[in-house]
Amino acid sequence: MNSFGLVVNLNKKGVRKLVRQITGWLTGRGCTVLIEEDIAAQLELPGFGVPKNRLYELAECMIVFGGDGTLLGTARKVAGTGTPIIGLNMGHMGFLTEIDLPEALPALEKLLDGEYDIEERMMLQANVYRQDKLVEQLVGLNDAVIAKGAFARLIQLEAHVNNEYINTYPTDGLIIASPTGSTAYSLSAGGPLVTPNLELMLLTPICPHALWARPLIIAPESIVKIIILSSQEEVMLTMDGQHGFNLYQYDQVLVSRSPQKARLVRLRGRGFFEVLRKKFHQEGDRNGA
Amino acid sequence: MNSFGLVVNLNKKGVRKLVRQITGWLTGRGCTVLIEEDIAAQLELPGFGVPKNRLYELAECMIVFGGDGTLLGTARKVAGTGTPIIGLNMGHMGFLTEIDLPEALPALEKLLDGEYDIEERMMLQANVYRQDKLVEQLVGLNDAVIAKGAFARLIQLEAHVNNEYINTYPTDGLIIASPTGSTAYSLSAGGPLVTPNLELMLLTPICPHALWARPLIIAPESIVKIIILSSQEEVMLTMDGQHGFNLYQYDQVLVSRSPQKARLVRLRGRGFFEVLRKKFHQEGDRNGA
Amino acid sequence: MNSFGLVVNLNKKGVRKLVRQITGWLTGRGCTVLIEEDIAAQLELPGFGVPKNRLYELAECMIVFGGDGTLLGTARKVAGTGTPIIGLNMGHMGFLTEIDLPEALPALEKLLDGEYDIEERMMLQANVYRQDKLVEQLVGLNDAVIAKGAFARLIQLEAHVNNEYINTYPTDGLIIASPTGSTAYSLSAGGPLVTPNLELMLLTPICPHALWARPLIIAPESIVKIIILSSQEEVMLTMDGQHGFNLYQYDQVLVSRSPQKARLVRLRGRGFFEVLRKKFHQEGDRNGA
Amino acid sequence: MNSFGLVVNLNKKGVRKLVRQITGWLTGRGCTVLIEEDIAAQLELPGFGVPKNRLYELAECMIVFGGDGTLLGTARKVAGTGTPIIGLNMGHMGFLTEIDLPEALPALEKLLDGEYDIEERMMLQANVYRQDKLVEQLVGLNDAVIAKGAFARLIQLEAHVNNEYINTYPTDGLIIASPTGSTAYSLSAGGPLVTPNLELMLLTPICPHALWARPLIIAPESIVKIIILSSQEEVMLTMDGQHGFNLYQYDQVLVSRSPQKARLVRLRGRGFFEVLRKKFHQEGDRNGA
Repeated sequence: MNSFGLVVNLNKKGVRKLVRQITGWLTGRGCTVLIEEDIAAQLELPGFGVPKNRLYELAECMIVFGGDGTLLGTARKVAGTGTPIIGLNMGHMGFLTEIDLPEALPALEKLLDGEYDIEERMMLQANVYRQDKLVEQLVGLNDAVIAKGAFARLIQLEAHVNNEYINTYPTDGLIIASPTGSTAYSLSAGGPLVTPNLELMLLTPICPHALWARPLIIAPESIVKIIILSSQEEVMLTMDGQHGFNLYQYDQVLVSRSPQKARLVRLRGRGFFEVLRKKFHQEGDRNGA
Repeated sequence: MNSFGLVVNLNKKGVRKLVRQITGWLTGRGCTVLIEEDIAAQLELPGFGVPKNRLYELAECMIVFGGDGTLLGTARKVAGTGTPIIGLNMGHMGFLTEIDLPEALPALEKLLDGEYDIEERMMLQANVYRQDKLVEQLVGLNDAVIAKGAFARLIQLEAHVNNEYINTYPTDGLIIASPTGSTAYSLSAGGPLVTPNLELMLLTPICPHALWARPLIIAPESIVKIIILSSQEEVMLTMDGQHGFNLYQYDQVLVSRSPQKARLVRLRGRGFFEVLRKKFHQEGDRNGA
Repeated sequence: MNSFGLVVNLNKKGVRKLVRQITGWLTGRGCTVLIEEDIAAQLELPGFGVPKNRLYELAECMIVFGGDGTLLGTARKVAGTGTPIIGLNMGHMGFLTEIDLPEALPALEKLLDGEYDIEERMMLQANVYRQDKLVEQLVGLNDAVIAKGAFARLIQLEAHVNNEYINTYPTDGLIIASPTGSTAYSLSAGGPLVTPNLELMLLTPICPHALWARPLIIAPESIVKIIILSSQEEVMLTMDGQHGFNLYQYDQVLVSRSPQKARLVRLRGRGFFEVLRKKFHQEGDRNGA
Repeated sequence: MNSFGLVVNLNKKGVRKLVRQITGWLTGRGCTVLIEEDIAAQLELPGFGVPKNRLYELAECMIVFGGDGTLLGTARKVAGTGTPIIGLNMGHMGFLTEIDLPEALPALEKLLDGEYDIEERMMLQANVYRQDKLVEQLVGLNDAVIAKGAFARLIQLEAHVNNEYINTYPTDGLIIASPTGSTAYSLSAGGPLVTPNLELMLLTPICPHALWARPLIIAPESIVKIIILSSQEEVMLTMDGQHGFNLYQYDQVLVSRSPQKARLVRLRGRGFFEVLRKKFHQEGDRNGA
């Protein structure tokens, strides 16, 4: 790899200095550095700016300065080109970001030396049909979420898998998650953890008002169809918690595996379980038993 | 009891005929029947119409034709006067409605004969402070819900009990429920069942993104204070799933036991557990074990 | 198919009459009927008795008269020969039994006419090592459960997947379930539903005393290793809720996909979701919201 | 307070040295120190030994050197005399122990100076009836647990509250917990947290095989009756995870509030929520949302 696209979350503390340092380090090693024009200007690195629409095709690898959220956004944008992504974590330990700050330079050294693997992750696509017409098409790495607005009333969502009727959920919403997304919103709603190398889809209802409505695992090649039965409510489809689209009564949302994969650079195989232990750990003994 | 206020959910099938029948039956026994003017007109019973603001003070007892939702709305409206309420269930079996349709007349017979008890239920009040000014005051029987909008992002809610800091919840929302409300939204969010004769408050987070954030039971005389820390989102306070109020960053919502009680007429003590069994029952054996 | 092995749960009401009726019906169509000697004697059908050890190899198809439990036991016994199994349900609707009683004869008619499919289901095997020596080997269709005894104390179970350390669970036990087993014990312990055509393993802790200990989905080719760290307690490995084996401190239980499959006869594709709806259904509306 | 009974968990590291130090410190301030004879001998403090049966009546206050488990055992033993208890935590932070090791002497200084409160905690009693004869009577602070043995089969438990039938649970067991016990086994089984100053009873089923079987809060003056319906299994009643009693088919276990209270010494009001935050805390952000 020789040409790196830098994606920068400017809200992270200390990110400007770090990006300038790493830009210098990379160019000093003969690498090309590319940054979206606007961002490059704000970083006072105008010489590295390229038009937004060219960034993802020119770069051989994206380096993300931010958290899991910034990486998710990048994954959606490069899904079409298959450019590998590596995240440099600027906040809490992430599930997706590979490099922690103190080890940034040794980690990039490895990257330049070719000491890495590419891990492919299943992505999801969601197509919205309104009166049989495709009106929106979204791609994401974590989850497609269909949910009601802030006013607390149930919505009715009719769910099918491969045209087999599952059930009609009286619920606040439904999450269709990839294995990568199992540690995100789906976990909060009671879904299981899934090792990210697997391919499957996870249907997790959000506060369902029906005791049968448990999280459900289905095959990755499934086509999930959700029909919005409720009329009275604000309902929205959200991809990866970042990209929203308003839904109306009788809209059909079809969620399936995307033909595109997210390609994440892995340097040294900090395993999934190690990250889980670090993020979730605590003592937590029963009081006395 | 001699004077009955009728509250009618006109959307329920067969309700018009039933209300006319029962109006006749009650007047035939010398009772006074009172109906809100607009509704009386729609029922073609204009002679029984009274102005909305007089209905709740003139009636000695409210008879609700509808489901639990209609009864909840009535409970909020009569909270100030303490008028007892009895529900005539027009749909699924309810937790709050006392009379099922086939037994309507024998049930009312008992009511006229004084063969009933009044069951007092704890209610909640929620006061919203904005820059130290009280901007909204709501009363409810089930729950006060603070929740984010349809676009799937977390909000941060800082929670205190009696000025003792509990924690800051990264969450979709928080439910503060009464025992009556334990079978409603709180149950969907993972909260426990509470026998309705108890007095306590139930704090149930909605899809919290923190494993420590479990449902919490606190004393009925507690004052719960929730501070909205998030700025970017639509956030709303909803009382009993019916009455909403928009919240903004740094708004403080104080939820406490209302001095008012809902007073529900009980005819024959169909117990709480019997209703639970009927509403939730099913076989559900493990496959083979 | 021409030769049928009958497995009979004699505790089921009406089973003797039914087995005699169906035996007559099958022989009348020129089929061979085989029953384990002891059972045949109790059914007063001694002419159809064969030695236990020959039953599973002689029959081309097993017909199970009982519930899911009887079918699970049969699946373990025929796992080595791959003989297909069909269940004739004598109790509650089962997840595994295919035929309901009223339709027994038309269903068998289809079977004789070849109008069926064979559905392969992933099975599990559990090997127990004590001081590096294999001391027990079990096969099952639903789940391998490692659990403490009745006296209420935690045990410590150290878990690995493919020699990667997961965590040490302070828990009442761990369930390693197949997709078929997702509707059994694992569901009671909070695990997700899995469509039974999938291949994966489900690790569900039983009342873990650690908030991070959530159900976990791993790849079907994984080898799960559980090490019993606790010394003081009665601990047991149970396969499909039927076959138990006592475990001691430092015993290692290795659970993996069995090379054997359960082969279930499917006549008309009553789908998984239809069974779920029937077994778990109920109304369950929120009280008013 | 002038006379202190010392309860010592000899398995805790460093406990011998600490007890000797504190014994010296207390006698130096003119206090009487009392230790159970056997333990006193093992601590090489024979001069402070008293017979076991006199310890609890002679001491004005029990000082527990150990963890929550040791304190629970002491609470059961002094329940009859109402002697206050203070715990000196020798391991992980406890829910019940008040003093952490580094602050042991300043804390005891406060105790001698009368700068403390006594917090009363509701206790539970469980009476076992066999063929209408009382065969066992147990008292506890956390919970009474009725549970099956290690072999993984369901038991059927019929539950009543004040002679009103609740339901029959197909389950691994039932926990009847006090508010204090809400952070113990009940939490692992999915029960809510309860602030410990409340009085109520919590019925939490253990891996119930029925979707309706949710945790249930009932009034503190309730009498819970559990009837063991299953015959085939090892079933046990366990109090506070420490004291067990074997149960048989048709045994009736009656659990109610004990007339006795546990009286815990509180020095400076480290609040319940502060302990919760410390024991359960972690970051735990969603991956990107």
